[in-house]
Amino acid sequence: MLLFRCDYAEGAHPDILRALSETNFEQLDGYGSDPYTRRAQEKILKACNCPEGEVYFLVGGTQTNATVIAAMLRDYEGAVAVQTGHIGVHEAGAVEYTGHKVLTIPQHLGKMAASDLEAFLAASDADPNKDHMVWPGLVYISLSTEYGTLYTRSELTELQSIAHKYGLPLFIDGARLGYALASPACDYTLADLKDLCDVFYIGGTKVGALCGEAVVFPKGAPKHFFTTVKQHGALLAKGRLLGIQFDTLFTDNLYGRIAANAIERAQDLIAVLKRKGIPFFLESPTNQQFVILENSRMAQLEKEVGFDIWEPSDADHTVVRFATSWATTPEMIRQLEEIL
Amino acid sequence: MLLFRCDYAEGAHPDILRALSETNFEQLDGYGSDPYTRRAQEKILKACNCPEGEVYFLVGGTQTNATVIAAMLRDYEGAVAVQTGHIGVHEAGAVEYTGHKVLTIPQHLGKMAASDLEAFLAASDADPNKDHMVWPGLVYISLSTEYGTLYTRSELTELQSIAHKYGLPLFIDGARLGYALASPACDYTLADLKDLCDVFYIGGTKVGALCGEAVVFPKGAPKHFFTTVKQHGALLAKGRLLGIQFDTLFTDNLYGRIAANAIERAQDLIAVLKRKGIPFFLESPTNQQFVILENSRMAQLEKEVGFDIWEPSDADHTVVRFATSWATTPEMIRQLEEIL
Amino acid sequence: MLLFRCDYAEGAHPDILRALSETNFEQLDGYGSDPYTRRAQEKILKACNCPEGEVYFLVGGTQTNATVIAAMLRDYEGAVAVQTGHIGVHEAGAVEYTGHKVLTIPQHLGKMAASDLEAFLAASDADPNKDHMVWPGLVYISLSTEYGTLYTRSELTELQSIAHKYGLPLFIDGARLGYALASPACDYTLADLKDLCDVFYIGGTKVGALCGEAVVFPKGAPKHFFTTVKQHGALLAKGRLLGIQFDTLFTDNLYGRIAANAIERAQDLIAVLKRKGIPFFLESPTNQQFVILENSRMAQLEKEVGFDIWEPSDADHTVVRFATSWATTPEMIRQLEEIL
Amino acid sequence: MLLFRCDYAEGAHPDILRALSETNFEQLDGYGSDPYTRRAQEKILKACNCPEGEVYFLVGGTQTNATVIAAMLRDYEGAVAVQTGHIGVHEAGAVEYTGHKVLTIPQHLGKMAASDLEAFLAASDADPNKDHMVWPGLVYISLSTEYGTLYTRSELTELQSIAHKYGLPLFIDGARLGYALASPACDYTLADLKDLCDVFYIGGTKVGALCGEAVVFPKGAPKHFFTTVKQHGALLAKGRLLGIQFDTLFTDNLYGRIAANAIERAQDLIAVLKRKGIPFFLESPTNQQFVILENSRMAQLEKEVGFDIWEPSDADHTVVRFATSWATTPEMIRQLEEIL
Repeated sequence: MLLFRCDYAEGAHPDILRALSETNFEQLDGYGSDPYTRRAQEKILKACNCPEGEVYFLVGGTQTNATVIAAMLRDYEGAVAVQTGHIGVHEAGAVEYTGHKVLTIPQHLGKMAASDLEAFLAASDADPNKDHMVWPGLVYISLSTEYGTLYTRSELTELQSIAHKYGLPLFIDGARLGYALASPACDYTLADLKDLCDVFYIGGTKVGALCGEAVVFPKGAPKHFFTTVKQHGALLAKGRLLGIQFDTLFTDNLYGRIAANAIERAQDLIAVLKRKGIPFFLESPTNQQFVILENSRMAQLEKEVGFDIWEPSDADHTVVRFATSWATTPEMIRQLEEIL
Repeated sequence: MLLFRCDYAEGAHPDILRALSETNFEQLDGYGSDPYTRRAQEKILKACNCPEGEVYFLVGGTQTNATVIAAMLRDYEGAVAVQTGHIGVHEAGAVEYTGHKVLTIPQHLGKMAASDLEAFLAASDADPNKDHMVWPGLVYISLSTEYGTLYTRSELTELQSIAHKYGLPLFIDGARLGYALASPACDYTLADLKDLCDVFYIGGTKVGALCGEAVVFPKGAPKHFFTTVKQHGALLAKGRLLGIQFDTLFTDNLYGRIAANAIERAQDLIAVLKRKGIPFFLESPTNQQFVILENSRMAQLEKEVGFDIWEPSDADHTVVRFATSWATTPEMIRQLEEIL
Repeated sequence: MLLFRCDYAEGAHPDILRALSETNFEQLDGYGSDPYTRRAQEKILKACNCPEGEVYFLVGGTQTNATVIAAMLRDYEGAVAVQTGHIGVHEAGAVEYTGHKVLTIPQHLGKMAASDLEAFLAASDADPNKDHMVWPGLVYISLSTEYGTLYTRSELTELQSIAHKYGLPLFIDGARLGYALASPACDYTLADLKDLCDVFYIGGTKVGALCGEAVVFPKGAPKHFFTTVKQHGALLAKGRLLGIQFDTLFTDNLYGRIAANAIERAQDLIAVLKRKGIPFFLESPTNQQFVILENSRMAQLEKEVGFDIWEPSDADHTVVRFATSWATTPEMIRQLEEIL
Repeated sequence: MLLFRCDYAEGAHPDILRALSETNFEQLDGYGSDPYTRRAQEKILKACNCPEGEVYFLVGGTQTNATVIAAMLRDYEGAVAVQTGHIGVHEAGAVEYTGHKVLTIPQHLGKMAASDLEAFLAASDADPNKDHMVWPGLVYISLSTEYGTLYTRSELTELQSIAHKYGLPLFIDGARLGYALASPACDYTLADLKDLCDVFYIGGTKVGALCGEAVVFPKGAPKHFFTTVKQHGALLAKGRLLGIQFDTLFTDNLYGRIAANAIERAQDLIAVLKRKGIPFFLESPTNQQFVILENSRMAQLEKEVGFDIWEPSDADHTVVRFATSWATTPEMIRQLEEIL
């Protein structure tokens, strides 16, 4: 079965497995106090051009979102996100479980519009009942979004500027950050993010690691963030597993190079889908592509190819998602073309 | 530096790394719906002799404790544990973070005495103010304990019987379960646990895996436990990482065999320590040994050997812990003897 | 200043103050184990025609909502409510603070439509990702609603039937239940509610008490609900304060009679507003009326009359709310007419 | 039946009921924005000699403890209390329900010893695993304590000084503050408390009010504390009920005067008990007295007098508590003497 269902269908980049094997019998301290973790932190801070920042390694995306948001908010605050934001939909209420409301505003192909954010925060601020309501405490966006869409540099600047106007930090869920930055449509780099938001993470799980998300606090982490990570059950005893993976991913820009492969294969995929006359619901600049299939054709295709059913389009058609990844090969695209 | 600081200083058993490499490019579904995870679940249920049970794979110990306890308790309930129980001391309040009190009773070299449990539950039940207090909802013990001690079969039977008398399940934190079961002093097997407690987990992190704890519900899991795992940020997207590791550990009893190595090396270690005339604070039947060092000797030794400082013994002496693991070699013990 | 701002501007019905005074020096047990509390519970169960039910007295509405919802839900569940539902807007995230998401669906003048509920629950149930999402665990509606609107008997029956189809209880926030039942438009009585929902409360704060909400569980309360109330900080030491008030309110149907006064005054108010040619935004069958005022006239009126600014209507007009209560007098309506 | 069971057996001081009646039909704004609440706040700040402070009115003790503690702590912090501290025993886990651990240290007749606090905080600070543990975030004591005992000025000064040395605020649970301050043994006044702790509350429920606790933040409240109160379900819609009560209690020092009555009656009670040859378990300087009764005599006495069974003394004797209050009359003491 040919899987285009998600960007985490394979294991890890072979360099990662090799590094794990080579270091396997070194006796290392736990909980991230090993030299590989330190080296990975240094490399990431260098790549992010923020030597005064701090980096923490957590295991997965939902965990990272809940942990960072809880650490940044006070009890009376909530996180502002668009209606399709991952934290409000597909994380089983992990943020609410920590006591915080997700305050939702409209989405536009997965993106947050500066005007919507401004309108929401202005209305919150002007609401005569605001003392009886959850206070907006943080703005959450995902990059690339759940729809594969991208924010431009000026959009991020504007969102952050509005957030700051109301005293809120901007948090970027970067589970797919690699694929965003590797897109030719992206007009900023990893080194720019320190100025475009207040905290972000570099997703490993979807970009070549077995697991792991690297949270970057450009200006330093919240107090006792290590303890917060432990309290959330997010501290890995064998921190080496995360440290070695990110050390590898940030050696010779492996992270950037394998993300670029996903984007190239996504372009190939777009070409195939167009040649086959399949109409697009959304042609994204990153690694996720949404097309509309006739239901009968979809049923046929499902026998040979794995993809994600997104939502009904009309009675006879369905929106489906194809995702490429760091591991997608030109051969896989060719096979897909044949099947189609 | 020779490390006897903990049982998670090395990476993973080489068979695990090999299995990860061999399956690396197979495209697999996420979140534990891959065939390796299913196979690991089946093998574990077989080894536990409870085909009707359920197995879930989580990432780490603190996370597993908090997730299982929250799933088993109602809001008004707490977990009964001894004062040295891991959940009440070194988990950064992860259980309380989910809203539940840890109700502590005395410890005896890390163990819970049936008489203490009975006394506590009887007093709770008889307390005229009990409606104003946290209700005991679950009994938590660790096996082997934080002191390396073991419960006998009859002790477990008695604890469970008292717990059941008051309507509570018995939960075994098995982060070091392998080392308990591999001890010659242990008078029960993995297959017996289904009758000796109500839920337990088989620790992977400390027994040869990179990460991973296998929770076994002998009579089935709490409703929607999958969602609970997700809500706690404990669901791994690449579930294969856990599935493949436990599939390997439960092939040809690898788990049991490597745990046995730790126990054999611990016996060698005990012999060395005794030959060197070092007094024991606690000679345990498992992989953790506690001795008393003169402070000056301790300072000297620390330059060449890593061990854990446990607690002051008197003004001039300190209790320290040496731990062996699946990866400890006879050569390491020899080196230690030379240094001593 | 003439206040029509809310239905809790005055203290308590004089009969309540009298009863508090008359019983003041009786020495009574605390926490609701006094005879007045028992008598109030019996009277309420009789008025509700459910002798097998249970009644608990809590202090305020937000507290009652959070406590009941937390008691009814498991951790992985959320409460379904309309977007204007009080729990999701003006309770400072009290429900989320207990770890539960409020799942919102559209509102229709404050009401939940059966078709929307059915659509939401059906979609949740059919969602292939439902294991990664908050499970609907309870349906919350307010009666009368935040807009003063009413559900008919058949609407309640349909909502409950849909909720039950998906295994969920229907919870009625009755902070303004008195005003709903006293409306001539209401086609059911207090005694019918036991069949129309699964748990509800009879609001005292807004209907003549100093404080207090009586939660009725027609088929019995969740286990250890007393402890849950205590844990939420909602248990009054001097339970007599609530018991005596509700004992008074349910003597000779005082509750019903004073609620009826609010409805009569609301009808007078409607007549006055119409005579003065003020356009209605929403003429409700209960004690809250919404009209549209020119901004200049509003500014003028605010100097002499207190009312609630609801929301802008257009650039020059605003929707405002006038509320009557058990304490509103014909004289107050006359004064308002003069001012207008 | 003559009740000495607790200090909240009666209703309210008659002046309070009178004030509630006299103001009953005044139309007032809700949620504490009425003039009586403001006046009560001013009077309290004046009595506390901290004009720059802030006062909030909450409804009950457990609620106040949980709300204040949650507002003062960050998620990774816990509250240090003695083992008999109310928050850790008889509040149904309300503090843990908000996610915070209660860190317990030994008690001495209900009091915290400075040396124990220093030892605990020093050990916490020196613990090499402290990043894996709950951070002490606040010191909680009750005044008077659950045993009726008092802290001296120098004891409070020392506790606060140790707390501050480790960066923690000192919080005084003043549910029985009136009875502490009215004791001849007390060497400080209400006006001194602003210097002796960082936040405290003045208990109304046990000292003459129907309900209500006045939290005083001498240097200002935590940010958005109003919203925190609402989120905890602790905000009374008819804030007048609390404002009018405390306005009355702080007019002409009513609070101090009625507390003094309890202390005088407690002295009478001590004299009676001594005359009758009943041995004391603890003769306290406040309104709670603990004596040892033969079980047969206890059974006899229970038929005519209500008191609290504290704990078994030996097989044939029991420690019981007698409490006086603002409402205890000389006549009641005389009756008790007769019965004895």
